[in-house]
Amino acid sequence: MNYILVVNAGSSSIKFRLYSENNLVEIASALCERIEIDGLFKISYQVNDKLEKFEEKTNFSSHEVAIDYCLKKLVDLKIVNNLNEIIGVGHRVVQGGEISQSSLIDTKVLAEIEKCIKLAPLHNKPELEVIKIINKKIPNSKPVAVFDTSFHTTIPKLNNYYPIPKKWVDSFKIKKYGFHGTSYRYIYEKMESIIKKGRPLNLIVCHLGNGASICCIKNGKSFDTTMGFTPMAGLIMGTRCGDIDPSIADYLINQEKNSATAVFNSYNKESGLKAICGSSDFRDINANVLPGNEFEFARDIFAQKVANTISVYLNHLENKIDGIVFTGGIGENDDIVRNIICKKIFVKKISVNASKNKLKYDDYKKISGLFSPIKVYAVRTNEELKIAQDTKSFIK
Amino acid sequence: MNYILVVNAGSSSIKFRLYSENNLVEIASALCERIEIDGLFKISYQVNDKLEKFEEKTNFSSHEVAIDYCLKKLVDLKIVNNLNEIIGVGHRVVQGGEISQSSLIDTKVLAEIEKCIKLAPLHNKPELEVIKIINKKIPNSKPVAVFDTSFHTTIPKLNNYYPIPKKWVDSFKIKKYGFHGTSYRYIYEKMESIIKKGRPLNLIVCHLGNGASICCIKNGKSFDTTMGFTPMAGLIMGTRCGDIDPSIADYLINQEKNSATAVFNSYNKESGLKAICGSSDFRDINANVLPGNEFEFARDIFAQKVANTISVYLNHLENKIDGIVFTGGIGENDDIVRNIICKKIFVKKISVNASKNKLKYDDYKKISGLFSPIKVYAVRTNEELKIAQDTKSFIK
Repeated sequence: MNYILVVNAGSSSIKFRLYSENNLVEIASALCERIEIDGLFKISYQVNDKLEKFEEKTNFSSHEVAIDYCLKKLVDLKIVNNLNEIIGVGHRVVQGGEISQSSLIDTKVLAEIEKCIKLAPLHNKPELEVIKIINKKIPNSKPVAVFDTSFHTTIPKLNNYYPIPKKWVDSFKIKKYGFHGTSYRYIYEKMESIIKKGRPLNLIVCHLGNGASICCIKNGKSFDTTMGFTPMAGLIMGTRCGDIDPSIADYLINQEKNSATAVFNSYNKESGLKAICGSSDFRDINANVLPGNEFEFARDIFAQKVANTISVYLNHLENKIDGIVFTGGIGENDDIVRNIICKKIFVKKISVNASKNKLKYDDYKKISGLFSPIKVYAVRTNEELKIAQDTKSFIK
Repeated sequence: MNYILVVNAGSSSIKFRLYSENNLVEIASALCERIEIDGLFKISYQVNDKLEKFEEKTNFSSHEVAIDYCLKKLVDLKIVNNLNEIIGVGHRVVQGGEISQSSLIDTKVLAEIEKCIKLAPLHNKPELEVIKIINKKIPNSKPVAVFDTSFHTTIPKLNNYYPIPKKWVDSFKIKKYGFHGTSYRYIYEKMESIIKKGRPLNLIVCHLGNGASICCIKNGKSFDTTMGFTPMAGLIMGTRCGDIDPSIADYLINQEKNSATAVFNSYNKESGLKAICGSSDFRDINANVLPGNEFEFARDIFAQKVANTISVYLNHLENKIDGIVFTGGIGENDDIVRNIICKKIFVKKISVNASKNKLKYDDYKKISGLFSPIKVYAVRTNEELKIAQDTKSFIK
């Protein structure tokens, strides 16, 4: 049997998903954590239609050690017979610069990913390293890069340009890149299959998770998005502040003598919902809401920023909209947050059906009322499956 | 005869306006420039219904020297008989912190203005100095402080809170203060007199000048605005970048080894329209627009950000809107920019009457078409007159 492996590498963790190549069924899901700290391995996998689990504390002294360990486990646990059965490997790459589609990784693409390290060092550096290691370990598989940014290369300059000195814009390639592109592509194709209009769709897709962004899709293409040069821009997130007056950093650095590194580290890791109420998890937040407390405020301000953005994107779409879609951990699962957001939209009529909104669902559901002029959906995203699909397309 | 003097102090200039106290007619307008550099004095003034002008290169070694010079000229040019005729002095103060209205300057208010130096050093420091000097020079006049921020103290926390660590929010009083408040108050009262609804109004006021902001006025009170902790936030301005991904500064400082001071200085003085097309003046920009060139792009992206904000504020106002108002140097005078902005609003129906939009006017005009569901106005603002009015109210 042949397989496709999907790899999502971070600076101290690597996530793996294994799919059957013929019908893209998920076979195994593995995680190497705490790389270069100590090491923790977790895997769940299908054997004869039974779900098995295995977990082990170990020592991942490098990314290569972690990869070796995981690949060996795939064989040892008899998930694959040998590594040559893995005929394609899809790598999630956060920053693809100007690359507008998923690409077979040749020397040229490798060089592009390397060039983009400058733009997203925390992501592209370990991703590039992991691509090189896996190319070595499974030399007969086809390596494919799937970029978070590529869906957004269609955003017009009017929506992605930052008006700062040209020397910076040009030499450092500063613009709104946008992220979550693989999720948006998955959702877009899913929506095409759900609403079958036979023409390119206009959608507002809210990918709300610990990292959160919204994409305005106009005529089937990304037209605007909330994340920017980095994934810190836009909405209020779990631990990121999103768009705030850029001069606040100036004040904290120059007036208050904080280091720039300390300020931006706090903006990324100690801000957002966590800074407001101490928790970045909406399950906690919902459970602790009392009238007027900080949990209620955190939920309300999060929803307000989403509603503000939806208002802008409704204007972008010029009153031709096929639907608003909620996805991501919060968007898929939190009916309370979905409801609060929709109640904050006044500029267009939207009604959410309370029982549809609360209903359990597998794949997707429509949550708007029967007569709502704008249709609203909750749709489960699957970035890994999208990466596997893209990878498979290069194997055929 | 009695007079009210309005003073607007900057770090290297001081502007003066003299009004008759009884009917608030403007008597003189003076400017001390290039203080602590060399010195240039300009004044225009009314004598027997004739407009006279006087200009002199001189030496302003300090703010006190400049003030002495200007006050002496008011007497020498026989604009006032003696300084005791100036019975009130209204000071523009940029940052008033939590002070929600114009205030007679006593020791307590003086201490508050001093406390706010930390928040706006470039503005509040010279303003405080000038207040103290004028108190000494014209000891019998009533000094009144009129704050750019006070109109915005009604903005709900949902719209003025920055989700960064609480230690910073609390100890450094970081929040969206908003600016241009004196202009918004003037415009609001003007609109009350124009549309006479007999109830608090809902307005979107676009104060578009070299510094530009928009205010959402809900039930007669500021509900949201685009400037933030500093006047750099929000729209694209003449030389300011407005809201951009806050992490870009992180990148420019840490990856590209610029100093934080250099980055934020460029954000303030070398960004915005100037960075895009080389000019920060819409008269230049309009004159140089050709299809597809950088002047057209500068105008278009400026208008797009305004339209985006109007979309958000239309949502804030929950479909109850009494008008959109354009004011400030660009908003009052540039029919082309007004037209482009209105054409970018799709989420609500707005029509601008081309000939009304181009018509010369004194005080205000309605520019929307007869059947436009949302009324649109161009209204001349007068911050100095508002300061004089506030000052007069403390004399009565």
